[in-house]
Amino acid sequence: MAAGHRACNDVTVTPSTIDEIKTPALIVDQQAFDHNCAAMDAVLPGAALRPHVKAFKSTDLARRLAAAGHTAFCAATPREIEGMVAAGLGEDLLLANESLDVARLGALSENANITVAVDSDATLDAAIKGGIRSVLIDVEVGLPRCGCSIEEAGPLADRARAAGLDVRGVMGYEGHLMMVEDRSERIDQVGSCMSDLLAASERVGGKIVSGGGTGTFDSNTWCTEIQAGSYLLMDTQYAKLDLPFRQALSVLATVISVSKKGWIVVDVGLKGLGMDHGDPTWPDGEVFFCSDEHTTLCPPEMSAWSVGDRVQLYPAHVDPTVAKHTQMWLVDGEAVVDRWAVDLRHW
Amino acid sequence: MAAGHRACNDVTVTPSTIDEIKTPALIVDQQAFDHNCAAMDAVLPGAALRPHVKAFKSTDLARRLAAAGHTAFCAATPREIEGMVAAGLGEDLLLANESLDVARLGALSENANITVAVDSDATLDAAIKGGIRSVLIDVEVGLPRCGCSIEEAGPLADRARAAGLDVRGVMGYEGHLMMVEDRSERIDQVGSCMSDLLAASERVGGKIVSGGGTGTFDSNTWCTEIQAGSYLLMDTQYAKLDLPFRQALSVLATVISVSKKGWIVVDVGLKGLGMDHGDPTWPDGEVFFCSDEHTTLCPPEMSAWSVGDRVQLYPAHVDPTVAKHTQMWLVDGEAVVDRWAVDLRHW
Repeated sequence: MAAGHRACNDVTVTPSTIDEIKTPALIVDQQAFDHNCAAMDAVLPGAALRPHVKAFKSTDLARRLAAAGHTAFCAATPREIEGMVAAGLGEDLLLANESLDVARLGALSENANITVAVDSDATLDAAIKGGIRSVLIDVEVGLPRCGCSIEEAGPLADRARAAGLDVRGVMGYEGHLMMVEDRSERIDQVGSCMSDLLAASERVGGKIVSGGGTGTFDSNTWCTEIQAGSYLLMDTQYAKLDLPFRQALSVLATVISVSKKGWIVVDVGLKGLGMDHGDPTWPDGEVFFCSDEHTTLCPPEMSAWSVGDRVQLYPAHVDPTVAKHTQMWLVDGEAVVDRWAVDLRHW
Repeated sequence: MAAGHRACNDVTVTPSTIDEIKTPALIVDQQAFDHNCAAMDAVLPGAALRPHVKAFKSTDLARRLAAAGHTAFCAATPREIEGMVAAGLGEDLLLANESLDVARLGALSENANITVAVDSDATLDAAIKGGIRSVLIDVEVGLPRCGCSIEEAGPLADRARAAGLDVRGVMGYEGHLMMVEDRSERIDQVGSCMSDLLAASERVGGKIVSGGGTGTFDSNTWCTEIQAGSYLLMDTQYAKLDLPFRQALSVLATVISVSKKGWIVVDVGLKGLGMDHGDPTWPDGEVFFCSDEHTTLCPPEMSAWSVGDRVQLYPAHVDPTVAKHTQMWLVDGEAVVDRWAVDLRHW
């Protein structure tokens, strides 16, 4: 989608430069984004990567990945799958999550190739009843969340096949290892988890072994496809690791108040920032605290700051930050080059 | 708005009972909500309260408050003001925040009575240029955020009047005192802050002295009006105080996975919960952790839980939780009695 479209909130905006963007707003640095795409593609080209749309919730962005050869996607919510189908991106969609509300996806199977994860009789029953044609067996590999045991995986696959479903393989997310800072330790631990997933794969059959994420994109060499999404836009949490990805996402804000006591206040707060990993980072000074619609910042040189100045804050967690906004602006230096609607939000 | 309206996400839903509501979803307990309204009205009837729409972002809810005599509202964003005007709730709207983007509000002044807060020459200039007719002088009373000093307040008011604006008075938010747990200590500290605000009021003139919030609604006896909003729906953070308000808001979720290792997983995570004050509370057991679209819970009795069961989680911070959803369902016991659109989101 080209720049200059009608934005949300009944405000017609046609920003051609970053200065003209109304704040608060999500900014994507095109050079960092392109770098991240290239760095990933060098390791995981085409079908070796199944990009996770939960990290960016935008079909405009997804379309770029499809054009680069990543035509299979995964998602965390039925809504994300629906939106991808509606955008014509339904070549190979995986709901990499359990849901009882999958009949809405089964109804889309004429126009798309949809696979859902199941980890229990109840979720498999919902898939069968909902007209889902393909499943992966979701196996718990150490993260205390969804997924069945290795022992449960085989019988579940047998039941699915008996019901006429295509069992494409297994998935298992080693999410508890994403932030292991030491690379060799990360590889060792991922290997241990993935040996469990491969054991389940032997019992389940099918070609797919799906797992991984941005933190293990190149250390998880056991999966046939990696489910990564955060690498595209990045956040300060992932930036702590030794990853070849750059921080592409920031939140643009305007200084609305300057205090002689040593702080400035900008017009984005915790309603525009994912806060579960903590405060955002401001490269030009200290983040004092965030409240609903404000962030108070402490610059090293107060005299340099006036009401109306702009700042860019770097969020600690990309996924929930993006989900709080309706759009992202792609910028190249000062120029606004595209607007990406965040159109896969909610459930 | 009556129940049974078309919900978001292209899913037509007509829930008549809580069991039929698609998850995740915001639930408002009608009895608790009505209790909270009555408890507030007993202390601050009519114009003594200026409800803060930032806490609920819904004109459906605001309309109930207006019907109960609270016809003056305050807001944190221009978008909230615009939405209130569009809903016919523009009798007396205060943007209790600084903004340089107020021309969009000045343009609405034919249909509404809009006042904006200013704390600097720059924000006053924006108000004058933007066609704003009324201002309050925002005074910093201890919270390190917006607001001018007592000394700056008088000259700013003089400048506003010289430009033909109506200076209605002062505002000052003692937000740093909302969570002081000891009541007498809270009253002492609020009194100290408010003596600053009254000193500024003497220099500024005008009838309004606006401030306070849910935490100080009955201890701040110096303001002519209290800006409270959280009392309506409440959260677990405010519940720690000795306030007469009940937890009315919860997030309804469905169990999507049950592990023999001792946990269950529900289909709402940190994208549906305000996380800046920490994890939500689950009355029936422990909250293990939240991820994007999941919360892992540890029940005391695993055998009691199956896939498809429902849980209600109580968020730690109401404002950002509501802002992540498109609607709230008002329930009376098991019956769904109304749907409130969350229509004042974004900026």
